Amino acid sequence: MLSSNDPNRKSWVEVPPLSDFPIQNLPFGIFKTSNRSPVAGVAIGEYVVDLAHLQDHGFLDSVDLPNKVFHQKYLNDFLSLGRKKIREVRECLSNLLKAENHILRDHASRKIALVPMHDVEMIMPVRIGNYTDFYSSEEHATNVGSMFRDPKNALLPNWKHLPVGYHGRASSIVVTGTPVRRPKGQIKPPDVASPIFSPSRKLDFELEVAFITCGENALGDRVTTEGAEDMIAGLVLFNDWSARDIQQWEYVPLGPFLSKNFASTISPWIVTLDALEPFRVEGPTQDPPVLPYLTFTGIRNFDIHLEVFVLPKAGKETSISKSNFKYMYWNMAQQLAHHTVNGCNIQVGDLYASGTISGPTPGSYGSLLELSWNGEKPLTLSDGTSRTFLHDNDTLIIRGHAEKNGVRIGFGSCSGKVLASHE
Amino acid sequence: MLSSNDPNRKSWVEVPPLSDFPIQNLPFGIFKTSNRSPVAGVAIGEYVVDLAHLQDHGFLDSVDLPNKVFHQKYLNDFLSLGRKKIREVRECLSNLLKAENHILRDHASRKIALVPMHDVEMIMPVRIGNYTDFYSSEEHATNVGSMFRDPKNALLPNWKHLPVGYHGRASSIVVTGTPVRRPKGQIKPPDVASPIFSPSRKLDFELEVAFITCGENALGDRVTTEGAEDMIAGLVLFNDWSARDIQQWEYVPLGPFLSKNFASTISPWIVTLDALEPFRVEGPTQDPPVLPYLTFTGIRNFDIHLEVFVLPKAGKETSISKSNFKYMYWNMAQQLAHHTVNGCNIQVGDLYASGTISGPTPGSYGSLLELSWNGEKPLTLSDGTSRTFLHDNDTLIIRGHAEKNGVRIGFGSCSGKVLASHE
Repeated sequence: MLSSNDPNRKSWVEVPPLSDFPIQNLPFGIFKTSNRSPVAGVAIGEYVVDLAHLQDHGFLDSVDLPNKVFHQKYLNDFLSLGRKKIREVRECLSNLLKAENHILRDHASRKIALVPMHDVEMIMPVRIGNYTDFYSSEEHATNVGSMFRDPKNALLPNWKHLPVGYHGRASSIVVTGTPVRRPKGQIKPPDVASPIFSPSRKLDFELEVAFITCGENALGDRVTTEGAEDMIAGLVLFNDWSARDIQQWEYVPLGPFLSKNFASTISPWIVTLDALEPFRVEGPTQDPPVLPYLTFTGIRNFDIHLEVFVLPKAGKETSISKSNFKYMYWNMAQQLAHHTVNGCNIQVGDLYASGTISGPTPGSYGSLLELSWNGEKPLTLSDGTSRTFLHDNDTLIIRGHAEKNGVRIGFGSCSGKVLASHE
Repeated sequence: MLSSNDPNRKSWVEVPPLSDFPIQNLPFGIFKTSNRSPVAGVAIGEYVVDLAHLQDHGFLDSVDLPNKVFHQKYLNDFLSLGRKKIREVRECLSNLLKAENHILRDHASRKIALVPMHDVEMIMPVRIGNYTDFYSSEEHATNVGSMFRDPKNALLPNWKHLPVGYHGRASSIVVTGTPVRRPKGQIKPPDVASPIFSPSRKLDFELEVAFITCGENALGDRVTTEGAEDMIAGLVLFNDWSARDIQQWEYVPLGPFLSKNFASTISPWIVTLDALEPFRVEGPTQDPPVLPYLTFTGIRNFDIHLEVFVLPKAGKETSISKSNFKYMYWNMAQQLAHHTVNGCNIQVGDLYASGTISGPTPGSYGSLLELSWNGEKPLTLSDGTSRTFLHDNDTLIIRGHAEKNGVRIGFGSCSGKVLASHE
């Protein structure tokens, strides 16, 4: 095990018991404050460590880094240094922050380098070049297929042979906290002959996890399942907001478009694959066997608890779903190998989302479409109101963490409040 | 009519009779030479005008421009100045290059500013942030629907109510001249129970025209059909290479993915909407009437002749299709209005492709899928060989131009040679 993952390691920065950000995590993000332009930071406890300040003052000199690489408003240039360099920086920080290390702990820079989390605004960590959404949860695909096609043949013939995916919109991916405007569009209620123009009446979330890339392959080359994880910097939580009524009318024959591209929300911290190393877990058995280019060795799923909450305008949060990233039928290494087997080129800062992560039981479904079974089974919130889909002024929150041996590696939250459509 | 479009206007630069690039065109691109790093240029006759040199030496001083805006390897920053500023630069160049103007004509800079086209390499003109492909030719959608679904109900119910579109892959868009590797992937021939892994046996082109944006709307806002053209810098030719066998197996339910994202090719020059102004033409009648947000005033289609050629390894070019951009059922203003009606945000440097442009007759179909009717009707090339789909070492070339009153506004070529799959 990497020393930075040692469950006994402690930091001189105080870390509250249920914090997402112990010294074993150290996820990367971009933050700003009222008097600090956007720079790169790392989360620990209730602080953000200002990496630009640390680099400027020599605390990272043990790692060979381009000048001012943490002063930029996106992490892309840092990520482009690759998985190994990202690991070196995280190791260096882990040493700098460990309880026994006095260098920063007892230095005047400490007060500047550690910024209280409540003073910062987290912004988009990467300039996302390309965004792909997979569809890799068998339970989700089965649920959707049962609802809209045939329960007996819910999975389409290709589903167990390849990780189905499609391209999404990069421009409208926003960071947690950004309000989301209810989209308008064409919908066709069953009782009318022609479509009408209306605010979506079936605004939904999708519970997903996404990975962000730190490597590239040349156009025409491929990435193998063995090499795939070297291309992955880390993970974020992802809400693929969806307007089900717009989707149902528009999606044939080329897939979802305006039903998805009005917004997607990510959590602000890139949790490195290195930090998640202790949480590997076997994925589901793949039967029928996959084609050779999709075979893999090792353990490629990750045990990450996921939970979804709705916070109504006046009321408290209600947990509406508990799922887990481990349910993915297709793992990330397979997704990248498939994505590139035709020579498609991955770029640094791309985002690849899992698709809705539904578990085997109704309480673990990853969308309101499934939780309410397309409106047939309303959910009751703690304030006594009910939901089939999202109301205006609802805030949808996704949280996630892995936990083992007393160490909790979390993501922070992925949240967005629904605003009413423009008049 | 803008003076820069006057058919009587002549340049002191010699322009051969069938040139795509008279003084009425002046399209923008990025070029490099053996001793010049990438900079912006404009085509005229058989020369590229070096805009970086012109700016450095004061020839563009009548236009207020950011310093070194033409020294960058992409046009994005220039395009971000907006439609009006792009027009001012084109007008300024039109004046500088007109026969009567001696300023550059008789200046020592002339020899440096005018680079012979055969000495330059054209590279990607923009860093494409987002790429959307529409499906806006009724004839194409009808042909595909007839082949794969039901000839009597070839168009799906939504097709005449909205411009169907989907997101494509930005990273793999390449400039003319870039070879394209035949993709491998999963295909499922009808005679086998499970998919096999194979080089595509049905590699195809798609004849398209794409527009590139020079404006942005905030996330949550929309662009109207009236405002849409202010967001469009200009057009390029576009080949949406497609692997039909991979597509047929993978595309349900979320649309094409690996069958498309291995490569798309654009022509190198952004032909401005201003240069195409004289070529507006009424589009097809839209029946049933469209929803109010898709209505428009004015003439929004463009009469642009398109032609497709196959050049086999040993042989001459054979023309295999003649089509026209005017056939589009949905125009660009409608496409942008639809794309943003849900609040989706357009960015500078996005690319929006028309979808395959097929005309009403078999000789005007915009793909081999249609021209060979999915392999049933092979085409014969001038060397006597036949094609249902593309062979290795075939070069596929798209050319296009508008013509009126003796003025020909062309695009240059959009070409790519098919390389055999990697072993």
